[in-house]
Amino acid sequence: MEKKKWSDLWLAYDMVTELGGKRSLTIEGFDSGNRVIKSAIAELNSGLKGLVGIELVTAEAFEKAANEKISFVKETSVPKEGYEVSGTDGEVIIKAGDENGILYGVFALLRNLAMGQRLESVNEKSSPSNPIRMMNHWDDMDGKIERGYSGDSFFFENDEIIINERTVDYARFMASIGINAVAINNVNVRGAATFLITDRFFSKVKELQDILADYGITLYLTINFASPIEIGGLETCDPLDEKVISWWRDKSKEVFEKLPEIGGFLVKADSEGRPGPFTYGRTQADGANMLADAVKPYDGIIIWRCFVYNCTQDWRDYKTDRARAGYDYFMEFDGAYRDNVILQIKNGPMDFQVREPVSPLLGGLKKTNQMLEVQIAQEYTGHQIDLFYLIPWFKEVLGFRTYCKEDCDTVADIISGKTMGNKNAGFVAVINTGNDYNWTGNDLAAANLYGFGRLAYDMSLSAETIAREWVRLTFSMDKKSEDVLVEMLLDSGDIYEKYTAPLGIGWMVTPHYHYGPSVDGYEYSRWGTYHRADHHAIGVDRTDKGTGYAQQYYSKNAEMYNDPETCPEELLLFFHRIPYTRKLKSGKTLIQHIYDSHFEGAEEAKALSAKWDSIKDAVPADVYERVAKRFELQVENAEEWRDQINSYFYRKSDIPDEKGRKIY
Amino acid sequence: MEKKKWSDLWLAYDMVTELGGKRSLTIEGFDSGNRVIKSAIAELNSGLKGLVGIELVTAEAFEKAANEKISFVKETSVPKEGYEVSGTDGEVIIKAGDENGILYGVFALLRNLAMGQRLESVNEKSSPSNPIRMMNHWDDMDGKIERGYSGDSFFFENDEIIINERTVDYARFMASIGINAVAINNVNVRGAATFLITDRFFSKVKELQDILADYGITLYLTINFASPIEIGGLETCDPLDEKVISWWRDKSKEVFEKLPEIGGFLVKADSEGRPGPFTYGRTQADGANMLADAVKPYDGIIIWRCFVYNCTQDWRDYKTDRARAGYDYFMEFDGAYRDNVILQIKNGPMDFQVREPVSPLLGGLKKTNQMLEVQIAQEYTGHQIDLFYLIPWFKEVLGFRTYCKEDCDTVADIISGKTMGNKNAGFVAVINTGNDYNWTGNDLAAANLYGFGRLAYDMSLSAETIAREWVRLTFSMDKKSEDVLVEMLLDSGDIYEKYTAPLGIGWMVTPHYHYGPSVDGYEYSRWGTYHRADHHAIGVDRTDKGTGYAQQYYSKNAEMYNDPETCPEELLLFFHRIPYTRKLKSGKTLIQHIYDSHFEGAEEAKALSAKWDSIKDAVPADVYERVAKRFELQVENAEEWRDQINSYFYRKSDIPDEKGRKIY
Repeated sequence: MEKKKWSDLWLAYDMVTELGGKRSLTIEGFDSGNRVIKSAIAELNSGLKGLVGIELVTAEAFEKAANEKISFVKETSVPKEGYEVSGTDGEVIIKAGDENGILYGVFALLRNLAMGQRLESVNEKSSPSNPIRMMNHWDDMDGKIERGYSGDSFFFENDEIIINERTVDYARFMASIGINAVAINNVNVRGAATFLITDRFFSKVKELQDILADYGITLYLTINFASPIEIGGLETCDPLDEKVISWWRDKSKEVFEKLPEIGGFLVKADSEGRPGPFTYGRTQADGANMLADAVKPYDGIIIWRCFVYNCTQDWRDYKTDRARAGYDYFMEFDGAYRDNVILQIKNGPMDFQVREPVSPLLGGLKKTNQMLEVQIAQEYTGHQIDLFYLIPWFKEVLGFRTYCKEDCDTVADIISGKTMGNKNAGFVAVINTGNDYNWTGNDLAAANLYGFGRLAYDMSLSAETIAREWVRLTFSMDKKSEDVLVEMLLDSGDIYEKYTAPLGIGWMVTPHYHYGPSVDGYEYSRWGTYHRADHHAIGVDRTDKGTGYAQQYYSKNAEMYNDPETCPEELLLFFHRIPYTRKLKSGKTLIQHIYDSHFEGAEEAKALSAKWDSIKDAVPADVYERVAKRFELQVENAEEWRDQINSYFYRKSDIPDEKGRKIY
Repeated sequence: MEKKKWSDLWLAYDMVTELGGKRSLTIEGFDSGNRVIKSAIAELNSGLKGLVGIELVTAEAFEKAANEKISFVKETSVPKEGYEVSGTDGEVIIKAGDENGILYGVFALLRNLAMGQRLESVNEKSSPSNPIRMMNHWDDMDGKIERGYSGDSFFFENDEIIINERTVDYARFMASIGINAVAINNVNVRGAATFLITDRFFSKVKELQDILADYGITLYLTINFASPIEIGGLETCDPLDEKVISWWRDKSKEVFEKLPEIGGFLVKADSEGRPGPFTYGRTQADGANMLADAVKPYDGIIIWRCFVYNCTQDWRDYKTDRARAGYDYFMEFDGAYRDNVILQIKNGPMDFQVREPVSPLLGGLKKTNQMLEVQIAQEYTGHQIDLFYLIPWFKEVLGFRTYCKEDCDTVADIISGKTMGNKNAGFVAVINTGNDYNWTGNDLAAANLYGFGRLAYDMSLSAETIAREWVRLTFSMDKKSEDVLVEMLLDSGDIYEKYTAPLGIGWMVTPHYHYGPSVDGYEYSRWGTYHRADHHAIGVDRTDKGTGYAQQYYSKNAEMYNDPETCPEELLLFFHRIPYTRKLKSGKTLIQHIYDSHFEGAEEAKALSAKWDSIKDAVPADVYERVAKRFELQVENAEEWRDQINSYFYRKSDIPDEKGRKIY
């Protein structure tokens, strides 16, 4: 048999303990012919066989063979998409209120087994933190992936949709971590992708949608706001134009007839050259609501991205502050968005930098559905070459108190719907997959794929718990090696942050490419991304005496950020313009902190690489080689960052390193 | 009739004075059936008809009609490719020793007429300064042009050769300015272009070669040094390998049989990723001589580019100096190159920057054929958006005294063959054409196309003479407008230099793209292009205390460059590391000079634009619009340069502008 062209990731189902024997499956309250239940049965079947050597048989066969069973039980008190798995000597029961709950319960059971739990003592009860747990693919229909670091698309090639065994495995992986929604095409909708909502593609999209639906996943399509022009031949896409409104009404009817299980549309408008309502002097709300009305009859949802800013700023313009843009554009219309509109908000006000404050829109909006968008494609965090386990960073974001209410005010509360009691809410990631054998380029980057899904399902899980689950499910290595790898993952983000742009300043990356340093690369650009370092100081004053960005937060946070004494130090240069000679809390000057952290970061990158070598024997040879090659590049990259950053600031400040280390 | 897709440039032959009547043509000593003579006759015919309304008739017809004639007379005392044109009342005689001389004489006659000279008083005698006067096209076979700013290739499209009326016009234009050699394909030979020397393309290349030969132009092909591998299937292209030697011997035989009039091969080896002898531990001489031996039986020539340097330098490496590379690689083998090898040497040691010293290889080599390579494609000089008339700059280069001999030691002397008495020598330009209607993107950039050819033919012509010729031939405008445009051209280079990188430092351009400023764009790169600006000073010390580059010149120049007091100020930062506070000859500090020249340069760019507007009525409307659009962009570009350069140096040096102007 030819080797499969993709790996099984964390669903390898290698034997843990050979139990053998047979078990019967009984199903109470569910239709055994339901597509999701069928998937749950199939998964249970192959999982049990692989992990513990148990054969699943029908109830009749069972009577004659053995005395143990597994039951799917409908239990309406279990929350939506939640499950309760409990094992005893004679029976394992999976209770759920709906089919997705059963499927997730099956995966939970198998995960527990793979983690080393015994069948009779599995006992897990969980339900999703977030109503919508979504992946956004930035796949283009020519097969390329925007900001993809794992090969090409497995959805598209040469302007056609690909459907094969890999599509099914993709759906299984997503379901196994609790993902219940995906948008398969890039938010920048161009060329053929514009026509995904036309006859040209309906039948293939339907096929794809069915595969996803088998695993409880709802398909969304990203649409081109200019579709009325590009598909419909209208002369405008003004959201208040009657012809446009009626075009979208008809189009939505057609789409939902052809693709009855589609969730709705995802839209990037008025951003980075994409068309949108601003072109016609309309508001973002005008645009989103017009679409929302069109899909409303079919319970469709409009997910509207808030990544809107002026991308042709003049670097000489000291007044405009890109960080302010999201809040400035969207807050005014809080409460004006339809119930079936969700605003999708990036975690920070800029664009997925290594360190940013939490976007003040999150919780700033009090009467609008919100979803948090993060990026596990490592655009600014090392291109899946450098190791960066993102879950600790996401945990920080989720735990951030917005003070939008007296309690229940964290980002996690807001996106889960707790704060406002809304159901159209959730957590979405720009995914890091491609058609590479290992799906994620760097084998270790799969920890972010796995981790995001698990975290989105259960935001109370710790970064360490998730890391350990992923390591054990993927590698089942000895405990000592597992500890090493878990520690590597947990440390990796801090290390990357140390050797890249300092203290929240961001953007010191090679323009367009976004890997490797270029301190002034975005300094004189049109992107609103300036550090304004001179001989004395660095940073943009975003306080009440500066651009006023800090004042977009509720007062407690606004005050904290406004004062360099209380501003968290890792964000100091995001909010303040600071002289190199200012003493930090460590007692070091800012410039010495820059030097020290960069020397440390590069050293620690080297140590990471050495740790990987130390567990060489605990991982498959091909995995070792792939990852080792990347660590080599990471060490080089870290040295490049160290030297460029240190040289840049030394040349500018003229202040030498206290420790006299080599600066160029 | 459909409008032609390309302009007639300086050969529009619009009526100057209607003389009317008929003239006969007599031909003495030449074969009237010779391809070049036939072209000369055709050109004379259409030129006379257009310019003065004269009809050219056969001698028999003439007897009955009029009493005046034009004669082509073979006169062996006229130097190779030279001509003598003398007009009297009854006869205009064009004397030449060869067919090219006649053709050039015809063009000279027509040029004189177009310039306003009367037929009977035309009197011009000239002969080429340079044996080889060549254009290098960087056209790729997919139709793109590397560093092309005038549309796509008119030679290639979709990996095929294009031959049409435009090909003929191209040949006419080249001949009209004295060009006698062209290489049509990019020096970076990849893909289909590798196979230009195979059966796949011979018949089409032959067709093209014939069109060029009709106009006295010799075709050269740029070859891939790895052809023995890529075409021949050998495992090596080691120039000392017997199989490789014999492959090239056979291949040359085949090429010269199929394309008997080809001049030879142009080679870029061991440079920027191209394969070459270094791969096998061989020298550049080994590579060039092997090929020279292969083409020798057919009087073929190998033109070998000297653009060889380490393009993976570490910016932290302060010892390696890219400026040294050409000299270091090629001087050692002076005298070891075959007689039919010509080294093609860029004007400066780096790469076509706005200001560089003359390459020390020119004249450094005393026993090796040399050709000077310049770039009229405006890669670093404004992308044919900004106006930059290059001829004054080329005149400076040509007039540079190398001191390789007591006299007859200028660059012009060396490349013309005067210094060493050699005939394989000359002047070559990377051309600025494409398939745009006006051939050169910016209509005014045609002045460089015209100017290079005229200068290569007669290096004694002044930049102003050439500019005036081109303006009059192209626009035939009133004298006042002509003066304005000539002055604009003559000033344009200084203006561009003022607002871009200061005092010979170079490379402060957007990486890869090479238009617009990026002060640190190449500072931390692998290209050996560093300014090393810090808080105090800028520049690389290339003196005897630094990299020793200045010592590659003969002592008189070496001493001049070695001392900042005697180093020409426009090259000060090329040779020296200079504190911002150093006083220049003007009495200004270096930093103040930077501020002042940049404010001035941007103002002067604006003034250029205004001057163009002032002659709006003297040029065709479409030309005005195209050029005006470019001046708009130039003004913007100049302001961007001004502000980025000034801000960069102010932020770094902390020294304010004495005049308190706006710096960001």
